[in-house]
Amino acid sequence: MNGAESLVQTLLNSGVDTCFANPGTSEMHFVGALDRIPGMRCVLGLQENVVTGMADGYYRIARKPACTLLHCGPGLANGMGNLHNARRAHAGIVNIVGDQATYHRPYDAPLTADTEGMARTVSHWVRTSTDAAEVGRDAALAVQNARALSGQISTLILPADASWNRGGVVANPLPVPASPAIDPHAVENVARVLRSNRNVLILLADQATLATSQRLAWRIADATGAHLLASYSNGHMQRGRGRLALERVPYGTDAAIKTLSQYDHIVLVNAKAPVGFFAYPEQPSIQYSSSAQIHVLSRSDQDSDVALTMLVEELGAREIAIPDAGCRPNPARGATTQENLAVTLAALMPENSIISNESISYGRDFYKLTHNAPAHDWLNLSGGAIGDGLPVATGAAVAGGDRRVISLQADGSAMYSLQSLWTQARERLPCTTILLNNRKYNILIGEYKNVGAVPGPTAMGMLDLSNPDLDWVQLANGMGVEAARATTMEECADLMQQSFKQKAPFLIDLII
Amino acid sequence: MNGAESLVQTLLNSGVDTCFANPGTSEMHFVGALDRIPGMRCVLGLQENVVTGMADGYYRIARKPACTLLHCGPGLANGMGNLHNARRAHAGIVNIVGDQATYHRPYDAPLTADTEGMARTVSHWVRTSTDAAEVGRDAALAVQNARALSGQISTLILPADASWNRGGVVANPLPVPASPAIDPHAVENVARVLRSNRNVLILLADQATLATSQRLAWRIADATGAHLLASYSNGHMQRGRGRLALERVPYGTDAAIKTLSQYDHIVLVNAKAPVGFFAYPEQPSIQYSSSAQIHVLSRSDQDSDVALTMLVEELGAREIAIPDAGCRPNPARGATTQENLAVTLAALMPENSIISNESISYGRDFYKLTHNAPAHDWLNLSGGAIGDGLPVATGAAVAGGDRRVISLQADGSAMYSLQSLWTQARERLPCTTILLNNRKYNILIGEYKNVGAVPGPTAMGMLDLSNPDLDWVQLANGMGVEAARATTMEECADLMQQSFKQKAPFLIDLII
Repeated sequence: MNGAESLVQTLLNSGVDTCFANPGTSEMHFVGALDRIPGMRCVLGLQENVVTGMADGYYRIARKPACTLLHCGPGLANGMGNLHNARRAHAGIVNIVGDQATYHRPYDAPLTADTEGMARTVSHWVRTSTDAAEVGRDAALAVQNARALSGQISTLILPADASWNRGGVVANPLPVPASPAIDPHAVENVARVLRSNRNVLILLADQATLATSQRLAWRIADATGAHLLASYSNGHMQRGRGRLALERVPYGTDAAIKTLSQYDHIVLVNAKAPVGFFAYPEQPSIQYSSSAQIHVLSRSDQDSDVALTMLVEELGAREIAIPDAGCRPNPARGATTQENLAVTLAALMPENSIISNESISYGRDFYKLTHNAPAHDWLNLSGGAIGDGLPVATGAAVAGGDRRVISLQADGSAMYSLQSLWTQARERLPCTTILLNNRKYNILIGEYKNVGAVPGPTAMGMLDLSNPDLDWVQLANGMGVEAARATTMEECADLMQQSFKQKAPFLIDLII
Repeated sequence: MNGAESLVQTLLNSGVDTCFANPGTSEMHFVGALDRIPGMRCVLGLQENVVTGMADGYYRIARKPACTLLHCGPGLANGMGNLHNARRAHAGIVNIVGDQATYHRPYDAPLTADTEGMARTVSHWVRTSTDAAEVGRDAALAVQNARALSGQISTLILPADASWNRGGVVANPLPVPASPAIDPHAVENVARVLRSNRNVLILLADQATLATSQRLAWRIADATGAHLLASYSNGHMQRGRGRLALERVPYGTDAAIKTLSQYDHIVLVNAKAPVGFFAYPEQPSIQYSSSAQIHVLSRSDQDSDVALTMLVEELGAREIAIPDAGCRPNPARGATTQENLAVTLAALMPENSIISNESISYGRDFYKLTHNAPAHDWLNLSGGAIGDGLPVATGAAVAGGDRRVISLQADGSAMYSLQSLWTQARERLPCTTILLNNRKYNILIGEYKNVGAVPGPTAMGMLDLSNPDLDWVQLANGMGVEAARATTMEECADLMQQSFKQKAPFLIDLII
């Protein structure tokens, strides 16, 4: 058995059965091993940021890591933007990066790069296996790290000779690492704060925004009068009817400061104390009141379900149903506005859909207008590196089976990883992309105005996406994805309904 | 004057007048400064690997650096693949990477990343300006480093507050660094080797493959009987009629070893001693004879024109014209074959064209079949990280003014940075893309067979680009580029001639 075969078998034994791939020459022995050892679903992406973004989306829905297959340092580099996003979303990923043979590296052949240096900037765990006999053991460790409760990025660098040499040893799966225990004193302290104060915010993030923690948090809010909010940047939220209508801290600094200023105490449940996405002149980095007290119930690597259960018990909070989010609306008619699109989405999305939200400026209100949709999963761009929406949707669809995936996708950010559409077509994934076509980097035009001026011709040359207009119907068709343009909500709703019936991708070029 | 304004004015004073950009929020003050201070041509790319690849292509033709404008660590990461290629092509680039404000960085907001760590993996020079007063000085240093004879990658990281704070100071341009002097003893030694041995190879790379060094090398070959070859991976060669029909060391290991085995002495002129692009089991890393003597006339950071002039004088080599490369051929007819396309290209390309060659497997023979084309510049993928062909072509066209740029572009690698086509359309660049559409990663199918087997279904799922076929006419049209399909050489030749008349981009989807 060669090193590559021990790697494939160890990954399968450890529960990793999906590989998002863009291979090159150094990975051919791994590809050969995948041919000989059955059980791994391999999904090709035509650019590496699509590959890593798919692995991120896969984890968020499957709640277990996939592996990626990347070619040398530059192949890893191409995928680092979405590894940054995955790290912020706490997605577990096992990157397999082929590289120069150990004895060939000193010759500095053209593709030789500082692969480890690149990997360290986005990974929690990095190792180069320099011997076929170590590959299985290292792969089991890579999976173990990735499977931590708060998923981690593991990067295993595989020199070509470690892959092709004989002497591979399949390793047994390693246990999932235990998450750090919740401190009972922290629970007691938070219970005391909640009992004795009025202006308390419980801020939820990540696991704490999923259904189980929501139900517990609601019992605590009901028992104490505390307010609940979610952080702005959560990779994965569960919402819609039957779930909590949980608002998020606003993106804009002024609005966030206004929202948070009323709280004297902030209890963090897997959340970080809120700070601005960016700094701005004359505005503070910290968005909460300088006199507010911060109390950590649980960190991002701890189990929020356990923490909140302990707090419910400490408070003796009663069982109580989550309030109904209201009737499902009817589809909107007429002009394509933010509100009309959000209402139509809530009206038409199938039960148990997955939303991949990279709607940027146009979608700022989508979230709060869709609480009364059927139960669904909502995936956000959590690292701010644009270009994750379409890859995350694609990977989520691979994990989701027959579940409908709907991308709310801004046009500027769609262009970063439009190659995703081809993978959606090849895999016949049930992905509906609503492409929000405003022909500009609208968020940046807003940011420019914040700097204090109207953009002149030079600035607009870098902020405007018209001249020429992108034709998204042709771009989608060119990659084998059926598509059509909509200029009214009636047209958009018709196309949504038509797409939701097909187990195949579709793109709606929505002119806004 | 704020830091951003001092940066723009210092760049302009230092001769950097072209900015390839994909800005974000942290760069808005720089964008604002570009609006207020005239003189910088700003070219928008819709993904950062397009931006950095354009800067590479620009340098290769303009022989001076452009700057890039990138957004935080992830924006830099997206562009690192082509920075790797630019480093291998010895292209000088000044990257300006906006980042979190200095005082905001400790809060670890979502886009915060290890920007310096990322930059170091692909840059010769990295600095973070933490104060508006330092930005001008640091920018002048960044340009100075990039302008070294063998161009370098400089990365200047600009926290948002260093950009917006008052106190910017415009810096004077710094002198271009002198390249290390040629050692007269090395010249004497090489002259001695050439005089006293028969089997001598003079291996040229980079600057030594441009017209001036070629003429000098030819005089030396004429005087001594030495053979001349170029390295396989050169970013920029000057060739066609009036230039030397300089063959390259073959890509394939067996062919390279066979070619090089006959030489007892190898004289390196800005070249590295040839090694394999990759290692393979049972094959050596080094491609030359183990008994061959290696003699370094000049390193890659030295001036090959000076070194070869000294050698010509030492040898007293006579003035002699470069041999004629033969008549310009007529366009080929019939089937789309490698040879037919190369001949047609030689027949039709305008004088002084620029070829951007990322033809990979299909284009292996293009080079040797185009010696008798009109004089032209030939730009190769020199770092092996696929996806540089279209961006390099685009940047070369920005530098080239009215010069025709022709991309020989494989389909698989085109998909890595297809967004380049949009920039070609926006800037109305005279770029003709000949898209070599074989619907597979053909080089990898060959590499898989080298591993010893025919690809099975799992492997082919990662090597085959059909199902669905990419429709390159629609993809190009979707980005505003006129395009048509050709299935015969007659159709291809007609489209080439039609395109060469227009100052606008065109894509020929050539079915091969």
